[in-house]
Amino acid sequence: LHLNSAREQWWLEHLQSLLPDFDCRLWHDRGNDADIEYAVVWRLPEQGLTQLSNLKCIVSVGAGIDQLMGNRLLVPDVPIIRTTGAELTQRMREYVCLHVLRVHRDLDSVIRAQSEQRWRQSVTPVAGQRQVGVMGLGNLGRACAVALRELGFSVRGWARSEHQIDGVQTFAGPASLDAFLSGTDILVCMLPLTTQTENILNNSLFGQLTPGASVINVGRGGHLNEADLLGALNSGQLSSATLDVFREEPLPPDSTLWSHPKIMVTPHIASMIDPLSGGQRIAQNLQQFKAGQPVDDLVNPDRGY
Amino acid sequence: LHLNSAREQWWLEHLQSLLPDFDCRLWHDRGNDADIEYAVVWRLPEQGLTQLSNLKCIVSVGAGIDQLMGNRLLVPDVPIIRTTGAELTQRMREYVCLHVLRVHRDLDSVIRAQSEQRWRQSVTPVAGQRQVGVMGLGNLGRACAVALRELGFSVRGWARSEHQIDGVQTFAGPASLDAFLSGTDILVCMLPLTTQTENILNNSLFGQLTPGASVINVGRGGHLNEADLLGALNSGQLSSATLDVFREEPLPPDSTLWSHPKIMVTPHIASMIDPLSGGQRIAQNLQQFKAGQPVDDLVNPDRGY
Repeated sequence: LHLNSAREQWWLEHLQSLLPDFDCRLWHDRGNDADIEYAVVWRLPEQGLTQLSNLKCIVSVGAGIDQLMGNRLLVPDVPIIRTTGAELTQRMREYVCLHVLRVHRDLDSVIRAQSEQRWRQSVTPVAGQRQVGVMGLGNLGRACAVALRELGFSVRGWARSEHQIDGVQTFAGPASLDAFLSGTDILVCMLPLTTQTENILNNSLFGQLTPGASVINVGRGGHLNEADLLGALNSGQLSSATLDVFREEPLPPDSTLWSHPKIMVTPHIASMIDPLSGGQRIAQNLQQFKAGQPVDDLVNPDRGY
Repeated sequence: LHLNSAREQWWLEHLQSLLPDFDCRLWHDRGNDADIEYAVVWRLPEQGLTQLSNLKCIVSVGAGIDQLMGNRLLVPDVPIIRTTGAELTQRMREYVCLHVLRVHRDLDSVIRAQSEQRWRQSVTPVAGQRQVGVMGLGNLGRACAVALRELGFSVRGWARSEHQIDGVQTFAGPASLDAFLSGTDILVCMLPLTTQTENILNNSLFGQLTPGASVINVGRGGHLNEADLLGALNSGQLSSATLDVFREEPLPPDSTLWSHPKIMVTPHIASMIDPLSGGQRIAQNLQQFKAGQPVDDLVNPDRGY
């Protein structure tokens, strides 16, 4: 286990109790590298994992695996298992609905008016007149697209491959990206970070949204070109951005993103893994992998997620 | 028509175009009182409506009629028609979901942390572990209860009479109020204002919620005992209040509610009537009433809503 050091003892006991057939060890107390068959990690240890000569699989404590892929030379060529689960999906659904509604109903202006003690009424369009575009239609993206549709929004989805979602107009692949973006008022990025999706939130993309659109990024910091975002906010091409993920986390105190009046910064909390249910999912995945059973969270190495 | 004076000319033309068989007149230009058969009003004119000797019906431009009932002596004993409609329901659903999610995910603290440039992560329980209580299960209350359930919340509903809503535990009448309140983490008041519901949000009610609960009032200002609310917020019995309606509107600039750190004030915008679709609903109701057809929005005088 190579995890958040403040909680690692708790994790050790939690996982050991769920995995009685495994011998769980903390990274700095792992004994012989050759003993280690399974590595449960969030960020890579500094020296990587290649020294673990008998490694059979790596478990990433999160839905993304890009944090492992920063230096592929340090990651041995073994299967990688992500960690998903119903609670992760539920929390993401809550965050995305909250912030799409917040932008839709212009809550930021309502809060500002209160701080000025001003009674300022305005009618916003109903959700059906607001086009929300969801980029990424995996478990999380699909659940959010459905929830937004149930709230009454006009929802579109875009992903690498074809998807069918009742009541949601879907688009597949780079060739249909322009059609997907056209007319989008609120764009939600839930893509996995791959070489194809890096920097996808850039000036050219912003220019294809409805003028004054808003962007919500719950994918990865690497999806966003920050300089392009600041330019689009300052020109008015975009009205607001809600950012939960950043190239460097925690976001450094001197980042200009913190205090930009049109940016809401949230500290990578859209969908945190609750250690209790996250631990159960990790244990279940490891047991299925060890028994040679199919593992839903197994990463497809060709896709990279 | 006795409406918002800034827009009355627009309303006159809009309603006249939708009601070619009616002769629409503004209040201050109405000619003989005896000519008037239908009165479309928001607040009562100062002298009331009793001088209209041939009045057949009053239309209230809103879902509530309590603003007409402040002095019943000024309201002739004729049928009253409210104004509801799909857009009103949709906007209310958006507002209630937005603010329940805001409270649930503690967005106020997230915003505060950003203003202090602090990266402060915390995991909130999933919605299923949060009990939301909806008071009032008319068109609006029912739609909100269903939407909250679809978002994953554990939802209860309370109303004067029995209601059945899939997946929502319902309670009817004063005798079951205590059972309904017990364990409620977020309480949403969507009741009509009647002599039975006035001041229902008081100290005794707050004391029956989960300690640290939050209250959202989208009913009427008269539902809330403000002194009791301030006491419950200051003692910690309540964590927050979100108020869209007030005893005096606009909320006076010197009200202490504006600047209380645990209160969000919104200027009666939960569900505004859009003049376009609201006018269509009013015209449809008047035409059905004139033709002797049933009118969904007709007020039941025994219930008072």
